[in-house]
Amino acid sequence: MTRADVDKLDAGDTLAHCKDRFLIPDNVIYLDGNSLGALPRSVPPRMEQAIRQEWGVGLIRSWNDANWYPAPQRVGDRIATLIGAAPGEVIMADSTSVNLFKVLVAALRLRPGRRRILGERGNFPTDGYVASGVAELMQAEFVALEPDQVYDAIDEQTAIVSLTHVNYKSGRVYDMARITQRAHEVGALVVWDLCHTAGAMPCDLNGCEADFAVGCGYKYLNGGPGAPAFVFVARRHQDAVRQPLTGWHGHGRPFEFIHEYEPAPGIDRMLVGTASQLGLISLEAALQAFSGVDMQALRHKSVAMTELFIRLVQQELPDFGFGLATPLDAASRGSQVSLTHAEGYAIMQALIARGVIGDFRAPDILRFGFAVLYLRFVDVWDAVAELKDIMASKAWMAAEFRQRKAVT
Amino acid sequence: MTRADVDKLDAGDTLAHCKDRFLIPDNVIYLDGNSLGALPRSVPPRMEQAIRQEWGVGLIRSWNDANWYPAPQRVGDRIATLIGAAPGEVIMADSTSVNLFKVLVAALRLRPGRRRILGERGNFPTDGYVASGVAELMQAEFVALEPDQVYDAIDEQTAIVSLTHVNYKSGRVYDMARITQRAHEVGALVVWDLCHTAGAMPCDLNGCEADFAVGCGYKYLNGGPGAPAFVFVARRHQDAVRQPLTGWHGHGRPFEFIHEYEPAPGIDRMLVGTASQLGLISLEAALQAFSGVDMQALRHKSVAMTELFIRLVQQELPDFGFGLATPLDAASRGSQVSLTHAEGYAIMQALIARGVIGDFRAPDILRFGFAVLYLRFVDVWDAVAELKDIMASKAWMAAEFRQRKAVT
Repeated sequence: MTRADVDKLDAGDTLAHCKDRFLIPDNVIYLDGNSLGALPRSVPPRMEQAIRQEWGVGLIRSWNDANWYPAPQRVGDRIATLIGAAPGEVIMADSTSVNLFKVLVAALRLRPGRRRILGERGNFPTDGYVASGVAELMQAEFVALEPDQVYDAIDEQTAIVSLTHVNYKSGRVYDMARITQRAHEVGALVVWDLCHTAGAMPCDLNGCEADFAVGCGYKYLNGGPGAPAFVFVARRHQDAVRQPLTGWHGHGRPFEFIHEYEPAPGIDRMLVGTASQLGLISLEAALQAFSGVDMQALRHKSVAMTELFIRLVQQELPDFGFGLATPLDAASRGSQVSLTHAEGYAIMQALIARGVIGDFRAPDILRFGFAVLYLRFVDVWDAVAELKDIMASKAWMAAEFRQRKAVT
Repeated sequence: MTRADVDKLDAGDTLAHCKDRFLIPDNVIYLDGNSLGALPRSVPPRMEQAIRQEWGVGLIRSWNDANWYPAPQRVGDRIATLIGAAPGEVIMADSTSVNLFKVLVAALRLRPGRRRILGERGNFPTDGYVASGVAELMQAEFVALEPDQVYDAIDEQTAIVSLTHVNYKSGRVYDMARITQRAHEVGALVVWDLCHTAGAMPCDLNGCEADFAVGCGYKYLNGGPGAPAFVFVARRHQDAVRQPLTGWHGHGRPFEFIHEYEPAPGIDRMLVGTASQLGLISLEAALQAFSGVDMQALRHKSVAMTELFIRLVQQELPDFGFGLATPLDAASRGSQVSLTHAEGYAIMQALIARGVIGDFRAPDILRFGFAVLYLRFVDVWDAVAELKDIMASKAWMAAEFRQRKAVT
């Protein structure tokens, strides 16, 4: 396969026009949209307007006049369309970790006779940390298993199965329908973390009859650093759900300032404090990048791109000690490819220094995310070519690439 | 007293130059800085840079290169100087409600033999809602009292006294030193909500030996709508504190991605998920408005301004049915004055329509906040003159002013 072959893939790309919806710096191939999404072109002017006009001139009036107040619901409804949820089932609030805490406590309360939360040992750490914290508070237990043990461990003792749909490190995808069905067979509930799913691949929460889901706004949704997170509660659970962070924005009548807590109807009860409005405005503007994008077409490009990356790594880099940590079967793979290498940290720093930006996950993972709205197939070719040159020239051995940074 | 007399107060105002640090719209007198602070002039250019350069060009690298990662600590240290805390005792995270949840659970864990949380019935609702939620989770009880009953109710059964320093409705100030001392005498801990204190008046957390505090960034600190909140934990408690929202940013080694939760040393363990970075950047820029401002001088102006407002209301509006819900004694009053009126909602809407922006708190409070960095004494005169005209002309009776909005 040659670069000319790859050019043809771009020529046939039905999503190629979406790249222009982002402001990508020159000389950068950005393969870290699974950590912080790139800047959508629609965001800077919208933020300028929100800050100077809505905040500066509208002041407090903008909670009504600029429709700030219903933003958590409005943005949630937009994200719902990307993850297979219905209007009124998704709302924006807090961070993924905080939302996970809410839904785990709420789900335990829906299953009072059961105390076991099942999870995966290799899940993103915060999911396990939060589940352990919830278990301690609620006199429950958190059991973390290997991925291939999870399905068989779901039994009548299980209150909750809490999993991340696409693993942050390996990119491996759980079969959402199968796990959810098994959980329901034994009366358990399922919480899906969609951090590496939302905006990266289609997802059918309601088709799978999922119970709860959470996810962040700053990866494939491109909402900006620390963008607000989302939380999904299936309609059938909403009136029974009691989450523990009983703040005033989750109250049924927040501006009557009454003494007793009274959860709002529907998804609104998942709110806690005042919404991070600047973050919401940025995220809402960012979601314009998905305008008219068919998620099946996005998935088609994503699979083609990860296949191309794997193929080129096999073709160009057979002798440099890389392993593949991502499933070869495309159906089991999210929109990322993870390579292993004992010197992964330094190699990734060397790549970043050349403008090919992926990231490193301890102890040995080089992680490449494919946010296909702003990537071309030739970017994949060029990224592998740089990696090959770094390995062949041993450029990664320079001392500057071995020095650890605060955020890796 | 005449408008000319008031002009002289402005001529002698040592903080008059600070008004230019804000972008206040023409024809607006903004008396709602206790709900949403005005826009500091320093914010728009800083946000433009952060979005276009740090996010857009720096991308994921900005967590290191633009010092995003230490922003929660850095901004916390700046706010510490306004509330009598030391470096390393304040950190920015989540919302006030979420932070209150963390410190209430943490404080209960520090007093395992005690189960009672004392609060005030007239506190801002979220404080009571969160305390009730914590009590349910922790098999504790939340007891809400009238303000003048709180001191005497603090006894050996009390685990936590949780109060808001300046009441959101009345502007009444608790004696922080006296309450804290009483709590410590009987072995209880104190949590102070500083939402209407931080940036509005001096506060000496360490001088009072306070244990915990929380507060928001979007009122007198002018961080923008939904700005991140702060949390204070006295140094002496930090290594013992175990908060329940055990997310990865509160971990001691977040980028080693290890399985077991291990709280970070010091204040960092109060973090949960990824910081709301756009909100933090806005807040940090906003805090430049406090550069060189002596908090005693700010308090001096604040007292003079609330005294002037009360005096002018008494002088100009004796016959229109207004009551005063704020203490007459300046030492017991925050930086706001609250009037009562049975038709308060419509009157406030009529005032807002004329550009004098305060707010309404059910059932009958007209609330006027004095964020003195951007207010002139003549603004106070002009606000009272508008109010007088609205009452004399009965302009508030128009139907358009009676229609309730989503956010009041």
